Amino acid sequence: MSPRYDFASDNTAPAAPEAMAALIAANAGFSASYGADATAARAADLIRQMLDADADVRFVTSGTAANAICLAALARPFEGVLAHRDSHVATDETGAPGFFGHGLAIQGLEGASGRIDPQALTRALAKPESAHAQPPAALSLTNATEYGTVYSAEALAVLTAAVRDRGYGVHLDGARLANAAATGFDLKSIPGLGVDLLVIGGTKAGMTPAEAIVIFRKDLVPRFDARLKQAGQLPSKSRFYAAPFVGMFESGAFITRAAHANAMARRLAELMPLPLRHPVEANGVFVEMDEPTLKRLQGAGWFVYRFIDGSVRFMCSWATTMEAIETLIDAVTVALEPTP
Amino acid sequence: MSPRYDFASDNTAPAAPEAMAALIAANAGFSASYGADATAARAADLIRQMLDADADVRFVTSGTAANAICLAALARPFEGVLAHRDSHVATDETGAPGFFGHGLAIQGLEGASGRIDPQALTRALAKPESAHAQPPAALSLTNATEYGTVYSAEALAVLTAAVRDRGYGVHLDGARLANAAATGFDLKSIPGLGVDLLVIGGTKAGMTPAEAIVIFRKDLVPRFDARLKQAGQLPSKSRFYAAPFVGMFESGAFITRAAHANAMARRLAELMPLPLRHPVEANGVFVEMDEPTLKRLQGAGWFVYRFIDGSVRFMCSWATTMEAIETLIDAVTVALEPTP
Amino acid sequence: MSPRYDFASDNTAPAAPEAMAALIAANAGFSASYGADATAARAADLIRQMLDADADVRFVTSGTAANAICLAALARPFEGVLAHRDSHVATDETGAPGFFGHGLAIQGLEGASGRIDPQALTRALAKPESAHAQPPAALSLTNATEYGTVYSAEALAVLTAAVRDRGYGVHLDGARLANAAATGFDLKSIPGLGVDLLVIGGTKAGMTPAEAIVIFRKDLVPRFDARLKQAGQLPSKSRFYAAPFVGMFESGAFITRAAHANAMARRLAELMPLPLRHPVEANGVFVEMDEPTLKRLQGAGWFVYRFIDGSVRFMCSWATTMEAIETLIDAVTVALEPTP
Amino acid sequence: MSPRYDFASDNTAPAAPEAMAALIAANAGFSASYGADATAARAADLIRQMLDADADVRFVTSGTAANAICLAALARPFEGVLAHRDSHVATDETGAPGFFGHGLAIQGLEGASGRIDPQALTRALAKPESAHAQPPAALSLTNATEYGTVYSAEALAVLTAAVRDRGYGVHLDGARLANAAATGFDLKSIPGLGVDLLVIGGTKAGMTPAEAIVIFRKDLVPRFDARLKQAGQLPSKSRFYAAPFVGMFESGAFITRAAHANAMARRLAELMPLPLRHPVEANGVFVEMDEPTLKRLQGAGWFVYRFIDGSVRFMCSWATTMEAIETLIDAVTVALEPTP
Repeated sequence: MSPRYDFASDNTAPAAPEAMAALIAANAGFSASYGADATAARAADLIRQMLDADADVRFVTSGTAANAICLAALARPFEGVLAHRDSHVATDETGAPGFFGHGLAIQGLEGASGRIDPQALTRALAKPESAHAQPPAALSLTNATEYGTVYSAEALAVLTAAVRDRGYGVHLDGARLANAAATGFDLKSIPGLGVDLLVIGGTKAGMTPAEAIVIFRKDLVPRFDARLKQAGQLPSKSRFYAAPFVGMFESGAFITRAAHANAMARRLAELMPLPLRHPVEANGVFVEMDEPTLKRLQGAGWFVYRFIDGSVRFMCSWATTMEAIETLIDAVTVALEPTP
Repeated sequence: MSPRYDFASDNTAPAAPEAMAALIAANAGFSASYGADATAARAADLIRQMLDADADVRFVTSGTAANAICLAALARPFEGVLAHRDSHVATDETGAPGFFGHGLAIQGLEGASGRIDPQALTRALAKPESAHAQPPAALSLTNATEYGTVYSAEALAVLTAAVRDRGYGVHLDGARLANAAATGFDLKSIPGLGVDLLVIGGTKAGMTPAEAIVIFRKDLVPRFDARLKQAGQLPSKSRFYAAPFVGMFESGAFITRAAHANAMARRLAELMPLPLRHPVEANGVFVEMDEPTLKRLQGAGWFVYRFIDGSVRFMCSWATTMEAIETLIDAVTVALEPTP
Repeated sequence: MSPRYDFASDNTAPAAPEAMAALIAANAGFSASYGADATAARAADLIRQMLDADADVRFVTSGTAANAICLAALARPFEGVLAHRDSHVATDETGAPGFFGHGLAIQGLEGASGRIDPQALTRALAKPESAHAQPPAALSLTNATEYGTVYSAEALAVLTAAVRDRGYGVHLDGARLANAAATGFDLKSIPGLGVDLLVIGGTKAGMTPAEAIVIFRKDLVPRFDARLKQAGQLPSKSRFYAAPFVGMFESGAFITRAAHANAMARRLAELMPLPLRHPVEANGVFVEMDEPTLKRLQGAGWFVYRFIDGSVRFMCSWATTMEAIETLIDAVTVALEPTP
Repeated sequence: MSPRYDFASDNTAPAAPEAMAALIAANAGFSASYGADATAARAADLIRQMLDADADVRFVTSGTAANAICLAALARPFEGVLAHRDSHVATDETGAPGFFGHGLAIQGLEGASGRIDPQALTRALAKPESAHAQPPAALSLTNATEYGTVYSAEALAVLTAAVRDRGYGVHLDGARLANAAATGFDLKSIPGLGVDLLVIGGTKAGMTPAEAIVIFRKDLVPRFDARLKQAGQLPSKSRFYAAPFVGMFESGAFITRAAHANAMARRLAELMPLPLRHPVEANGVFVEMDEPTLKRLQGAGWFVYRFIDGSVRFMCSWATTMEAIETLIDAVTVALEPTP
């Protein structure tokens, strides 16, 4: 059997047709570069419309870089950023926030299934400041979370209110914002939550590689392009990073494709003959699986792996098919009951 | 008249058909991510073949980041990198080498038309080391140069020999390596020159955004992916950064498209009714032009600008047409003799 | 009552007479600067003699900087340094390792009373490497530890052997090395343990501010002064940082003064009418104390505070007197039984 | 003859008696650390009084670090700091501003004898901003300058006004502020000039190693101690860095000792049988000297060296004697007319 990457991550999927079509359409004639092109302007308009906000938008190449650049804009090297202890910025970016932020610390907060426990945030904020530890300057949120759960706008508001009172910044990692939105999370609630910098994930949403940084706070705009350029995130042929957003937003595919991914995850969860670790609200399914079973499943060609919390993660995407799910479930079943 | 970006830069051109076709072809089915995909393997093979070298290859999103990451791999924060004083790393990357290198200094060397004067290098290397200044640890070269000239392998060998004797590293910025190769510069000479890290530009060569880092020195390979990941340059959907290399290399377009760009530059230079600042060896034409003329030309819709050395730069690309050149020459002529 | 800083830290004590006398003696006539002075040469000789090692020695101003500079010399930004999770570099330096190391991560290991559990180290080293997390490149040890315990040379050897096998670096934070040595820890064992960089604390040992970096690994020596200078740690009037080492080493006070501090801590522990959290092996006493008692003690003018582990820390130094201990014990007794 | 460091730098001199006496006086009993001690409070009061300003003051160990930390507080990594091209931050700190500032660029301005030419500043400020180069965010001044000249308050006002209009920050490197003040430069003019951060040099003024950072801008105060701590510049035994300021300010020696140094430089200049490169306004004498003469002078045991501008520098200090000047002049005379 040929190797199967279907459930390894939502970045193993190809780009959706809507993204590719827009990319091809944008590839016509000469155009301005470094974000001054008409495609970028159009994509920014669509994002502003979706968020109902007068925000600045930039298109970059990497979610890791986008997050880290945002954190560096909100916290200085001798400060910290509060985030869920299993969040992507804390666990899966090889220390990028500390690199782009020159030593800034990610300070992990507890919370079930990837959502920050408001009391954990309160406790962290209550710590007396000292010159001998990095005081927090910002809060980093993720929606949908690393464990496939989704914050409601109300739940986010509780968290952001706590830090806004202190004048701290707020970053929202939306690598899977499309999946959150497809569950009903209202994107137009984001500006009112006091988010300063939002990263909208294109890559995991079914685009060719592309991420958008949305700058809500006007004082962060001046020289943001110099910040991006120095960090290698001001693409010259910028149209290629804006085009997939145009394609996915104009068509509505940004949401509909994510809704499909979420539905596939729910279906997979229903069929999975093993306990689930987390509620399945977005496009990830986290399964309790012992090591022999995992090894047999991997041996059968399925690229999946044990996640931070010890569960085995299965990610669905716009490209996940029912056929793949059925084949996977068969493989899991076989892995569970190996022929002697 | 609608704005004309044809000569503003080689990054205002769309991607060449060979790159787009490969991108579309790569966009099929699920695949591994983070460089473990078959497209990346194929592209790396093609690059090794072209260079006739057993090198490691990585595909990244940004030339600025690629250069800066390479320099940070060759020099520590308290060291310097010798480079032409007008090179891209020195003048056009918003201090990216200092950012990725945490304070490492680019130390500018003189040299006519973008090529480092070997005597300037000798003088810089002869400076006695002191704890109070950043001693050089590497040499950064560019071919084709920032001023559209091309080093021969022999000329490069003179420069690299001087630093290899001291154990310093060598970086070659090949943002326009295709243009150099199209003039006859032998890419297979690069490994023998003692280059440690080479950046092959895809973007300016007519690809969708994509750059390759070639690692010749084996001791630089371990943990290079962690280095890239932390710096936001380990793309998840890596196939999209490798595919255009496959398309352009398999078809030979990497060279033939660059040869076209170079030929267009030569033709433009011949027709240009103004003195040239530099020899036209690759795809750039640098013109002596007074400010009123430039203003009129810009006023007529042509996006061109005054470069570092005070000349006005016209870049040709794979997409430059004879028609555009003729239209531009007409516009320059009009700008020179404005109707009263 | 006037405020009492006697037990707040070992840095609230004045400098010992031997250090001051040497400082005054060194303050004669003109001398070379930046470490090229005779005082620095003499102090380095004394340190080499004490360690029985042909090492390079530099004198710097700050333990935090010294530690962080050493870690940056042993690990790159995309790598980690393994250290006790409550070590000074992990908890009490405001992220200095990440700042001087541009994002390098301190990775905390468990272990009772400040000593790393060898099994925790083994587990950390066994983690498979990935480009998505910072792989360890060095081990940072502390002797005496943050909790006033002391590693034997044998216990350290177990830890260093595990990382030396992998070619990782070893740093030893000796902010309280004098206290460890005064308990019998053999300083001449350090070179054989495979320590690459050692920081010898002068400040807490009773000197005017001064720390020594000992470089055992010869390949780390070239350009180390440039590294220090860039980091603000190559003092111009270097004799003032070397002199206290001369005074304390020539007189033997480095050890005898630490022995006094340790003895005072033991006496304090014996008299303390509250449970101890950690074995008292060096100069710190960690006490279980409830909040009302602590508040009353502080209210009585004693500057002491709750430490990382929740206990209340009392540090002794060369300047601690039996009289102060008795007065403190009286104050604790009163705090425990407040008059109604 | 024994080596002579008298004129090598103003940091080869010992500490003045007033500084040493204060250090010894401060070394009594236990005291708070990390700047919370009474000595630091007293020294800060004296500095505020001298400047007639309600400023915050911190005492640190290194001028290089103090300058770099200030610049990092005023400019972000993707920004620049305008400074004289031969200033200490530009030429003599091994890139510390780029290290502490994570890539921030020092952008050199021309100007005779170390004073920035106002027109050069105007030209630099007039450059159109671009995302491709680091736009300036601050101006760094030095008084007395690197070439022993002194700005008047009026001359500084011209420079600071130009940048204050744009909201840029202003840093004043006062490594030799005492020497400037001793020529009549009014220290009370500094707050009105719009200086945000001032470094007052203690070391070169005849103290034991000590520098003061004066924070005029209130918004820079919060978390400045965390900034210092992370950078290794929040000394634990802080009294030793404040004490020499107390001694030199209470006694008036800060000015009188500098006046002596300046007078010695004037006398040396008068006697020097060689042309001077710069006006002698403070404590440095810069001499035109050919290489054979310099070599002979050095061969006779005099540690002096060729400076950035090619002249040979002779620095006077509080400890310079007329006898030393006469001996030096004899040595120069002999070096000029070697016995055949």
